[in-house]
Amino acid sequence: MNIGLDMMGGDYAPLEAVKGVAQYLSNPQTGISLTLIGDKATIEELLAAHAVPLTSIQIVHAEQVIEMHEHPTKALKEKQQSSIAIGFHLLASGKIDAFISAGNTGAMMVGALFSIKAIEGVSRPTIGAYIPRENGSLGLLLDAGINADCKPENLNQFAILGSLFAEHILGIENPKVGLVNIGEEEGKGNILAQVTYPLLKENSLINFVGNIEGRDILMDKSDVMVCEGFTGNVVLKMAESVYDIVKRRGIEDEHFDRFNFEMYGGVPVLGVAKPVIIGHGISHATAFKNMIAIAQRMIEKDLLKKMQDAFTN
Amino acid sequence: MNIGLDMMGGDYAPLEAVKGVAQYLSNPQTGISLTLIGDKATIEELLAAHAVPLTSIQIVHAEQVIEMHEHPTKALKEKQQSSIAIGFHLLASGKIDAFISAGNTGAMMVGALFSIKAIEGVSRPTIGAYIPRENGSLGLLLDAGINADCKPENLNQFAILGSLFAEHILGIENPKVGLVNIGEEEGKGNILAQVTYPLLKENSLINFVGNIEGRDILMDKSDVMVCEGFTGNVVLKMAESVYDIVKRRGIEDEHFDRFNFEMYGGVPVLGVAKPVIIGHGISHATAFKNMIAIAQRMIEKDLLKKMQDAFTN
Repeated sequence: MNIGLDMMGGDYAPLEAVKGVAQYLSNPQTGISLTLIGDKATIEELLAAHAVPLTSIQIVHAEQVIEMHEHPTKALKEKQQSSIAIGFHLLASGKIDAFISAGNTGAMMVGALFSIKAIEGVSRPTIGAYIPRENGSLGLLLDAGINADCKPENLNQFAILGSLFAEHILGIENPKVGLVNIGEEEGKGNILAQVTYPLLKENSLINFVGNIEGRDILMDKSDVMVCEGFTGNVVLKMAESVYDIVKRRGIEDEHFDRFNFEMYGGVPVLGVAKPVIIGHGISHATAFKNMIAIAQRMIEKDLLKKMQDAFTN
Repeated sequence: MNIGLDMMGGDYAPLEAVKGVAQYLSNPQTGISLTLIGDKATIEELLAAHAVPLTSIQIVHAEQVIEMHEHPTKALKEKQQSSIAIGFHLLASGKIDAFISAGNTGAMMVGALFSIKAIEGVSRPTIGAYIPRENGSLGLLLDAGINADCKPENLNQFAILGSLFAEHILGIENPKVGLVNIGEEEGKGNILAQVTYPLLKENSLINFVGNIEGRDILMDKSDVMVCEGFTGNVVLKMAESVYDIVKRRGIEDEHFDRFNFEMYGGVPVLGVAKPVIIGHGISHATAFKNMIAIAQRMIEKDLLKKMQDAFTN
């Protein structure tokens, strides 16, 4: 199993990426090797400085970096020697089994969609967001902003992808799927929600529990919460701002500490044919470590195969 | 000036409504009379029990009550002697200058739209929600859930209505209008937001400051935040749930206390030709008092005339 990591992506790369690798490798791993992509000399120096064991590490040099502000499609096309472009090349050709980056999100999406492509039958890959709940578990809200306008069938597919991720990666048995809506009963909501409801209800691949309202998002009424990416992104960013307010006001609370979305590292692009994980630009060491662990789990559980099966049956 | 109040609406009516009237009248008011609509005997008894001065009060008896669970249109049609039906009759015929109820929201909306009608030029009246900000002021988010699907022109009109309310009732000079969106730059967002942006930008009646993201909603980046009612309602209910979580976790914080949306009483239906205020079902005395005060301010400032002018120029 070989996990590829863009060492140059994110505001604190490559230092925090190296520290994340060190954290990850501090627990002995079996059968995992890491391919670190980026400026070879710098990476080697940092690995040495942090006394990272090199036995399961290989470095692939990348001369270029796609910066955070660059235009995704343009940058990816023009910077063939960038860590992101090389990462996708390695993933597409099977030299790595998963690719992780906290770099330019747009470039990561373009790479995922065009180098790796969607799982057959999936019209729109999606990105979810973890939602901390008071019972200590994590829920998954999707789409988190990639698909601003959606059709009912997109939401129905997000529900399938999200359920498989919640079950196999978050470890939630028979995850409850809720449709984010503005009313509890069937028939409530905007046109999208009204048309989506019966699709979810009839979908035998998921455990649909009905509509959930804004007040239920931070609760555990459902584990997988589906909506279009506009609402999902607004909700997610508002939840992030709650953490900022809590901190500014000097409130110390274990639950609200979990609203620090930074610590979750990245979220996978669900619906593309190979594991691709996109991190927050502000990722620190723990986030990188967590992303590697998620990639490992996705490979071990053969999540992609399970997703492919769901869409071919 | 005569303000009509449905004494039978809300989970704690008529007791809390009477206590709200008592609170309101405890500050001497000039030129205001209150028309209390509901079961006359009960109201008289409660007014006496709370030693409410009767000089500026008149009671209009209503034999029926529209319950919270009843179908709005059906109930309003069949219960002509209900406090809500009578209230709208008094408002439409000019016997009261504003009508307030914490009763069946749907029936209040139907009454507002069909007995009172929209201001000429307004395609869709709207309901906003107050958003507490750390600087102590209130922002206004609209639509809060009445219009689940919107056209760009609706959002543009909400911006005008919300700006006038923010300026004259909330006392915010030259209120900043933000478009709720998922990205900061023009051109970002879903199709609705993309098409709405230029309308807001060219609207000379408002002070448009551009897109605001989910993280800005609880901040003071803008005073009037416009979006369709689906996102608005999800966001609002999530903010309400933050208050519940804060309380459950035993956190005492002045700012988060202001997330107790109950205390704001009701919000006016903006865009109908007369002042109509719809309260939370869970309204307590302070909420009733606040709703009467808002109605008074709307009448004193002649807000409806200002709104009419905005749509005829």
